[in-house]
Amino acid sequence: MKIAVLGGDGFVGWPTSLHLSELGHEVHILDNLSRRWIDTELGVQSLTPMDSIQERTRIWHQETGRRIRFHLLDIAKDYDLLKGWLAEHRPDAIVHFAEQRAAPYSMKSDRHKNYTVSNNVNASHNLLNAIVETGIDAHLVHLGTMGVYGYSSVGAAIPEGYLPVGIETLAGDTARQDILYPANPGSVYHMTKCLDQLLFQFYAKNDGVRITDLHQGIVWGTHTDQTRRHPQLVNRFDYDGDYGTVLNRFLIQAAIGYPLTVHGTGGQTRAFIHIQDSVRCIELALKNPPARGDRVKIFNQMTETHRVRDLAELVAKITGARVAYVPNPRKEAAENDLVVRNEQFLELGLKPTTLAEGLLSEVVDVAKKFAYRVDRSRIPALSAWTKDIAPTLDSDPEGKRLRKVS
Amino acid sequence: MKIAVLGGDGFVGWPTSLHLSELGHEVHILDNLSRRWIDTELGVQSLTPMDSIQERTRIWHQETGRRIRFHLLDIAKDYDLLKGWLAEHRPDAIVHFAEQRAAPYSMKSDRHKNYTVSNNVNASHNLLNAIVETGIDAHLVHLGTMGVYGYSSVGAAIPEGYLPVGIETLAGDTARQDILYPANPGSVYHMTKCLDQLLFQFYAKNDGVRITDLHQGIVWGTHTDQTRRHPQLVNRFDYDGDYGTVLNRFLIQAAIGYPLTVHGTGGQTRAFIHIQDSVRCIELALKNPPARGDRVKIFNQMTETHRVRDLAELVAKITGARVAYVPNPRKEAAENDLVVRNEQFLELGLKPTTLAEGLLSEVVDVAKKFAYRVDRSRIPALSAWTKDIAPTLDSDPEGKRLRKVS
Repeated sequence: MKIAVLGGDGFVGWPTSLHLSELGHEVHILDNLSRRWIDTELGVQSLTPMDSIQERTRIWHQETGRRIRFHLLDIAKDYDLLKGWLAEHRPDAIVHFAEQRAAPYSMKSDRHKNYTVSNNVNASHNLLNAIVETGIDAHLVHLGTMGVYGYSSVGAAIPEGYLPVGIETLAGDTARQDILYPANPGSVYHMTKCLDQLLFQFYAKNDGVRITDLHQGIVWGTHTDQTRRHPQLVNRFDYDGDYGTVLNRFLIQAAIGYPLTVHGTGGQTRAFIHIQDSVRCIELALKNPPARGDRVKIFNQMTETHRVRDLAELVAKITGARVAYVPNPRKEAAENDLVVRNEQFLELGLKPTTLAEGLLSEVVDVAKKFAYRVDRSRIPALSAWTKDIAPTLDSDPEGKRLRKVS
Repeated sequence: MKIAVLGGDGFVGWPTSLHLSELGHEVHILDNLSRRWIDTELGVQSLTPMDSIQERTRIWHQETGRRIRFHLLDIAKDYDLLKGWLAEHRPDAIVHFAEQRAAPYSMKSDRHKNYTVSNNVNASHNLLNAIVETGIDAHLVHLGTMGVYGYSSVGAAIPEGYLPVGIETLAGDTARQDILYPANPGSVYHMTKCLDQLLFQFYAKNDGVRITDLHQGIVWGTHTDQTRRHPQLVNRFDYDGDYGTVLNRFLIQAAIGYPLTVHGTGGQTRAFIHIQDSVRCIELALKNPPARGDRVKIFNQMTETHRVRDLAELVAKITGARVAYVPNPRKEAAENDLVVRNEQFLELGLKPTTLAEGLLSEVVDVAKKFAYRVDRSRIPALSAWTKDIAPTLDSDPEGKRLRKVS
């Protein structure tokens, strides 16, 4: 297949591009490299030393003989270029990662809120619009988030996208209907993924666009089979307070002797998936498209759920790190349960990488190896969800006080 | 109260501004005048001769001694100006009409789809963002649409925003929960109003913004008590295929001897409200804000439901016009039933203007009076919902063939 990977220079986009290329697909990366610009804005960098996308693709060709083409293109801003590109290349499938993907970044300031909404909504809508306008029949695979569901359940399992409900009719009986799971996003970023869902629903219904939406859990790990092949193919690893996801942040904190910072009580239960399983899920989704005219196909792309404080204790046990409970920058439920349905990918053959087997190697192979590159002052999560929360946070850049507290 | 009316130069915005001014409120209109620019783009004009906003407000002052201030501002593009304006003026309430509001216009081309999404989403999000950032406690009243619900019911009444459903729990019993009514928009325009709903839900939850969302039916009529006071205070009246709403289009078709063009079978049942009742509903909503921390308050702003072909037959009976059934440019159910709950406004004192009492005067006072200004070639609705539908439409600009068909 000819596959366009939008956002193919990013944390999941890059290993996905390699994985699909390895499988023999013709892979084109379209990316505006915004994630690298945001590194510059924030003054942070990937823990792993990351080469330019041009250099990465050159190494991939050198190591494997395969070509991944890179096209610098801002799909949120350059609709006409995107449309022209699709009309010329007519991909069979499009994998859409091209959105601002950090909840804390989306809540940093009013400017960051506006950027996230405008960038993400326009990116997704431009893409749908251009698919219809060019008349191509590409299968669109989009990376969503488990965060669209929210975490305040009524004691029910989170289904894969569609919730069967009973609705009282005028005749007095109960009609059964599958509805898109009611959106309950916890940040501006998560909200944009809920907006995406409505865009997808409309374009599937009105224009018959074939769409798969993957509601992904929190990704952990760095390496995949392909990124391991050469030091310059290494994936990015974010540990800063904005882009670092919870488990990866614990790993690096453990590696440098910084206390593991748990927000609030750590009673938040979240869904997780290893990066290797993520790229495998994309492969499975591409192999199993919906038919033209079908509703949007939704998968829960996750393999395990864990309570945050349990994760911290687990990492502490493996590494000897301490755990520090710090004020929560987010406005969210202090404690929640979470049961998630994910049968679809398991039935398609996904074999999950478990935390138990993968965790230690991540600490040794990545976190310890590159610990010398860490800027400790970038570790605290300081993007507050509201103006009331902001003053309760404490940057404590060296983690000194936290070490005593724990 | 000090009230900002965003989009206060438009079809509902203008009579609302007059109505609120008459009630003694300090009214500020913020508008980018985009609706006037779209008239220029399409080469159409209001049936009623409409003065500039500056002239309209001057006449209003001359007639009543009251001042309505006008500020030229694009809230979708000029976030910083909007924030500065709110910080300086600190309104007690904000009425938000500032969105592209025609479904056919939103479906005209890929450019119009992009414009509608980008304009409407950024307008609403900029506004919410600026309210939070400036720390004002303004009550936001937004004009939504009945179209967010869609028209494929399961034989249940459309509630006012929130649907009580039963969800099966892990324990095997049924949990009752109120959810935002599942969105099922029929056009890109309607979709943007569904996106708005999620923006409002998030900002009410995260930041305690007080928000009322009014899901309005199709507005008919032109005059209100205030627009009648002087010829230069007249409201706009759109009859063209993009901005003309169904009942107003029938009225003008009848007035000029053009057949009443019914799309498809005319089996679509829709909700309606007279413009006089619309402005009264805004007044009632402003008087009854939600408390800080409440969920978004949602009203169904409509008074009657009618099947489109019944409306056409009614207008035909009053006026002697003929009815022509033409291909439907929209992708929608050919027939639907519709039962809508609207008790909230009735309980607050709304006394509906019924079609039976208001219809004839609209035909005589407006349609016949200004019939000489009609451009017949602008009457057909030619914005097709899909590329398959486009070739089935027929512009027949003079309505000649239709006259024979009927």
